[in-house]
Amino acid sequence: MINELVIKYKDKIEEELNSVYKQGPKLLLEPINHVFSGKGKRFRPLLTLFTAKTLQYDVDKALDAAISIEILHNFTLVHDDIMDKDKLRHGKETVNVKWDNDIALLSGDAMLALAMQKLNSYSGNHLIFPTFVNGLLAVCEGQALDKEFENKSKINISDYMNMIDLKTGYLIGLSAELGSVVADVKEEECILFREFGRRVGRAFQIQDDILEIFSDSKTMGKSLESDLVLGKKTFLMVNAEEQNSGFIDEVNKLISKNYSKGIVKIRKMFLDNGSYDAAKKLINENIKHANDILKSLPYDTQYLQYFSDLIGTRKF
Amino acid sequence: MINELVIKYKDKIEEELNSVYKQGPKLLLEPINHVFSGKGKRFRPLLTLFTAKTLQYDVDKALDAAISIEILHNFTLVHDDIMDKDKLRHGKETVNVKWDNDIALLSGDAMLALAMQKLNSYSGNHLIFPTFVNGLLAVCEGQALDKEFENKSKINISDYMNMIDLKTGYLIGLSAELGSVVADVKEEECILFREFGRRVGRAFQIQDDILEIFSDSKTMGKSLESDLVLGKKTFLMVNAEEQNSGFIDEVNKLISKNYSKGIVKIRKMFLDNGSYDAAKKLINENIKHANDILKSLPYDTQYLQYFSDLIGTRKF
Repeated sequence: MINELVIKYKDKIEEELNSVYKQGPKLLLEPINHVFSGKGKRFRPLLTLFTAKTLQYDVDKALDAAISIEILHNFTLVHDDIMDKDKLRHGKETVNVKWDNDIALLSGDAMLALAMQKLNSYSGNHLIFPTFVNGLLAVCEGQALDKEFENKSKINISDYMNMIDLKTGYLIGLSAELGSVVADVKEEECILFREFGRRVGRAFQIQDDILEIFSDSKTMGKSLESDLVLGKKTFLMVNAEEQNSGFIDEVNKLISKNYSKGIVKIRKMFLDNGSYDAAKKLINENIKHANDILKSLPYDTQYLQYFSDLIGTRKF
Repeated sequence: MINELVIKYKDKIEEELNSVYKQGPKLLLEPINHVFSGKGKRFRPLLTLFTAKTLQYDVDKALDAAISIEILHNFTLVHDDIMDKDKLRHGKETVNVKWDNDIALLSGDAMLALAMQKLNSYSGNHLIFPTFVNGLLAVCEGQALDKEFENKSKINISDYMNMIDLKTGYLIGLSAELGSVVADVKEEECILFREFGRRVGRAFQIQDDILEIFSDSKTMGKSLESDLVLGKKTFLMVNAEEQNSGFIDEVNKLISKNYSKGIVKIRKMFLDNGSYDAAKKLINENIKHANDILKSLPYDTQYLQYFSDLIGTRKF
């Protein structure tokens, strides 16, 4: 039953996304619609719609907010791909590769404007824009920290958690929160939906960190090598370095020598030194926390629990 | 009297700007505050404050809107400077040069978030965010057209006018409009303030096109060569090419051979073929139109007229 709803909502989202930007300069129209037609999971906008559904609010009336979130998410990806020189995203060439960095820069900027334009339909709701804007600043700060950490080997787990909260958690928190803000429930409840989303977001990012190492580019539909090469700080890296200072240097040596052989060895190291298990444990704790929040709410939250439970088992 | 007010308001703006972003990742704090401390003219936020004053609205209550406009303007400059590889802005090194392209990209994104956060204080006013967001999309589209035109020689005056309206006119229109929206006057009047600003913006951009050719980098506080080298379409270029197809090719030859000698010849060509006079005429027409709008308003608009009159005589 929920799987059918997911398909139905995903169709709604994709249909709407593909109608967002139909008139404008060619230099924006083509790359932006290229991005919108990518095969994303639509995880964030689905979360917005299912939050609305949980609150028995008309899902169609929450669609603009959901689209806004998805465009915001895609804006971050387009700009990230410039910085990380990524070539593949959602199974398609990135804008920086198919066009160039300048066009990716401009398209990202325009996407942010389009994301916010989608919120114009709620302009009577005074919480909508401030909520969205605070989320946007958090994402930018998270990206900046992520980049700052590339050149540092001494990152502790609390720095790391702060960074992923900003980079990923806030936006997934915002996805749930906007659903509740649109549905106009009490502000205290909106904060609980946000907190639920942030916990899910944390779990999501740590699972992503695992997949970056233990999955392959084809399954993920995006380039994976770049993160390791750029020295991105993942949970696994930070955890392993805390136990054994010098671990990151060793990883760098292994991948610069021979990537495909190196990655096999690195996977084994993470399994042996317990970092993999520690990551899984942290994921489960955050999912449990997210589900506890759901239980405290006076609604039938089965749809949202489906989302949180999904994280630990997702393969892409 | 108005000169004293300009100084007083400029001080307010700069003091406020320098307190906008005091906590965040170092990678954002330093470049963003570097930009904020540049010696900008603060033309746009002054226009917002003087619109509020014209409407006898408390200028201090319009300050957040003015700051928001100035940050939005600076966001566009930071991203433009990446694309145009500019090195100098407001008399200081650009972010892309003092740091790098990635940091300029991220700083610009975060500045946009900060610009909108400044509007949170008006969240009860349902026109504020939609007005701002529509302006943002226009600016992005204007930048895209400006870039699209770089590689085209056949641009007619109406394409050019559309491009500068989006790139410059809308944002200056927004500067006046936001002042009136904050002051909560009738929507029809807000539209007149916007139209006034757009006309001023047109005149401003055409004057800028003249200064790009007839001024020097030191007076302007920004790199000027890049625009010519990049093949930017200015009013002078489009007008001259319309009269004499092949003009732009000739300009390109002259500047690629020897920039300093070439620019002297190019200036003479624009004076001889009447493009300079045509630009001056168009500036005056737009200023007259702007002033006519002011006269139609039931307010003492002397401060705003000062702004429109300033355009034709500005030297930087």
